[in-house]
This record gives sequence, C-alpha cells and structure tokens, in this order.
Amino acid sequence: MPAENVKAIFFDVFGTVVDWRGGVIREGERLGERHGLPVDWAAFADAWRGEYAPSMQRVRGGELPWTPLDGLHRESLDRLLERFGITGLSEREKEHLNHAWHRLDPWPDSVPGLTRLREEYVIAPLSNGNVSLLVDMARRAGLPWDVILSAELARRYKPDPEAYLASAALLDLPPTEVMMAAAHPDDLRAAAALGFRTAYIHRPHEWGLRAKPPVKPADSEFGLVTESIEELADRLT
Amino acid sequence: MPAENVKAIFFDVFGTVVDWRGGVIREGERLGERHGLPVDWAAFADAWRGEYAPSMQRVRGGELPWTPLDGLHRESLDRLLERFGITGLSEREKEHLNHAWHRLDPWPDSVPGLTRLREEYVIAPLSNGNVSLLVDMARRAGLPWDVILSAELARRYKPDPEAYLASAALLDLPPTEVMMAAAHPDDLRAAAALGFRTAYIHRPHEWGLRAKPPVKPADSEFGLVTESIEELADRLT
Repeated sequence: MPAENVKAIFFDVFGTVVDWRGGVIREGERLGERHGLPVDWAAFADAWRGEYAPSMQRVRGGELPWTPLDGLHRESLDRLLERFGITGLSEREKEHLNHAWHRLDPWPDSVPGLTRLREEYVIAPLSNGNVSLLVDMARRAGLPWDVILSAELARRYKPDPEAYLASAALLDLPPTEVMMAAAHPDDLRAAAALGFRTAYIHRPHEWGLRAKPPVKPADSEFGLVTESIEELADRLT
Repeated sequence: MPAENVKAIFFDVFGTVVDWRGGVIREGERLGERHGLPVDWAAFADAWRGEYAPSMQRVRGGELPWTPLDGLHRESLDRLLERFGITGLSEREKEHLNHAWHRLDPWPDSVPGLTRLREEYVIAPLSNGNVSLLVDMARRAGLPWDVILSAELARRYKPDPEAYLASAALLDLPPTEVMMAAAHPDDLRAAAALGFRTAYIHRPHEWGLRAKPPVKPADSEFGLVTESIEELADRLT
C-alpha cells in the first residue's frame, strides 16, 4: 500500500499544481499588447524559469543572503527585460509582471483532485515560492490547502533537506507519514532520501506543447507514478 | 474608516475564535466518565489555562528553549494530573487529552463571520498555538483560513513583537495593512504598538457563564470594538 500511515501530502507547486509557463506567457502578452512590444513571450517565460535554479543556487551557496522567491524573480526579471529589449515599463508595471507568478492557473485536474484528497489527508504546498505568493495563488485559483508550507519558513530552498524536514516538523509528523508529490524527479529523490513517501505526477506539457516531454519514470522508482492529481486521489482515497 | 488599506486580518484563536474552556471540559468529562474520575473539569480547565502565560514566560525568559505550545501544555498537564489526583491514564490517553486543544469548537459566529471576511481579506490565525494544533482545529471546525500563522513560525510567543512582525512579513505586508482581532486587550495593545490596526471582539463567556465577564474596552481604545466576528464582518465588508 503506497500510502500506508500517510497523514499529509505535500505538493510541489510550479509545474506540478499550476501551469507557470502558460500563466507567464498570458501576463506577458497582456503587457506586450498594451505597450506594443514585439516580444516572444514563450521564450521570455522559458528564460525566466531558466534563471530559477541558478538564482536559488546563489542563495544556497552563500553568495546571496536568504531572499524570498519574489526577490529572486525580480532580479532575474530586471536582467531579462534588458536582454529582451523591453523598455518603458513603470516600476508598478514591473512589480505587477513580477507577480505574474502569484496569478498562475492550476492544471484542470488540480482543484478537483486536491479537494478529494483533502477529505482524508492534510494537504499543503511545499514550494520554493514564498508564502505571500502561495496565498495569493491559492485565493485566486481556489486551491483548498489546509496550511501553506514554503521553503521560506525554513529559509532553505528545496532540495535542501531542511526545507522538507522543517515542513514535516511543523505538522508534527515524521517524514514516513508524509508523501511528497511532484512532477520533478529531483524533488522526489531529495524527499525520499529523508524518508518521505513519494508520488510522481506526470506533466508532459510543463514546458509547452512543442517541447520534448520529460521521460516518465519507471513505476518502481517512486511510491506512485500518476498522470494527474485526480489519478492520485483515485489511488489514495 | 477603521480598515482603510487593510489587506489581511489576523485572529487570536483561544477565546477569540474558539471556546477553549467548553472544549477542555467536554474532553475531560468524557475521559472522567470512562475512568470514573470524580474531577471538577471546569476547575481543571481553568487551572490548565492558568498555566498558559507562566509557561510561555519560561520560554520568553530563557528558562526553557523554544517549545511549541503542545509541549508546554503537556508539561502543565502532567503537573495538573498529579494536583487533581488523576491516576491510571495511559500515555496514549494523556496525549489524547493534551490534544483536546486541537479539538476546540468555534463560537457560533466564528465560521460565518470568517467566511464573509475571507471574501475581501486574507484571513489567518495568529496564535500561540503551534501549527499542527491550528491545522487540526481548522480541519475539524471548518475554519476557512487562507494561511496558518503561528508564534511557532517566529519561535517567539505573543506578545513579543517578533510574533506579529514575522507574520506580517510572511504576507509581505506592512503592519499598517494588517488588522489584529482578539478578545484580549494585551494582545491588541502589543500589535497596535507596532502599527497594526486592531479590532476587539468581546467574549464575555470565555471563562464560563459564572465568571465575572471582562470589561469591554471603550470604543476609542481600539480601531473597532465588536461583539462577534459576524459583527466584524458587518462593519468591514
């Protein structure tokens, strides 16, 4: 039984619960229309997300002090605006664009699947997104979290062990009673190494319809390998 | 306008949102019936709550390291079991009784008032209760929080300033955009001193129907003085 003794399920958010790429493209296009900007917003979204891991690595390596993700996104954004030749934005418009990550839409199965899982499990995001980002997103998208967990609470970004362990400790649960659900094998492997149960959620279109989809892991690699959060609910409830 | 610019409302929980006394008495009576214990559970509840402030003071003063409220409650409980001559409980029963604080009922106006306020404001507990306690309580009672905030996140008990300031910072809001709502003037005064807006919720029966009710503060002392969370919603929405 893949979920024996599991009391809580932690979800990675960007890519797993919400479609970051579609959301950033949508917000960029709106801004672009208003300013007549000839920008490839899909390329912009991919470049912004491309800065994600390196920016957290700067915190992890001590080059930057603890910085919530909004701050890392903003630093990357300022560089990308220059790289893409985007000028003429007010500070208010830059901040609004930076908060595109607060306004991402869930995949169609996310809300129904989470709603069903919540009947039997404590459900929480465990994201590198900061708390205010996750609160704004949940309110807008109707994500029915029981509690907002974030790397910000441990001041350590996933996949650092402290991000997972501090989150389980806040629920007063040992890792063996928590399942980490994510579309990214590295996130799951880091959690599994600490004793968490794991569920892989396949998101072939995280990087768009034209991108080569990620290889779905073998069923044996994680506790569960599923195609959606609804399928996770089918198998766990 | 008492709530101009307010984006979020933080609620004290024990006494303000839930009836701790009635809940502890109920749980004690159930246990007492099972064991045939001739205990005055109202006196027991009052004594347990009486240990609350002194136990946090031991953390605040450095006598104890940071200890979540469940741990402080358990230390007090062990002393009270002896003082009230309660013997023969298993470790499992003691832990279950200690978790009575996770299973408190809301006052009748709490869920309807919070539900209405949530349409316009981010709502959160800001309690000295630990995160797992607040999550269990919210799930059982249907409290519709957007995010669980707790002294545990700052590892500082209210009314220490850090408990309030760290909570506002997690929402990326200055204190002036947050309203603290509580049935306890000291909690509100500590928040007001940091720039928070305040709402007093009168709970005359927090200490039972026979206890002398607290004096309701003058309307001028806090931003709002109300009789219930429903009245707060009437006045803020």
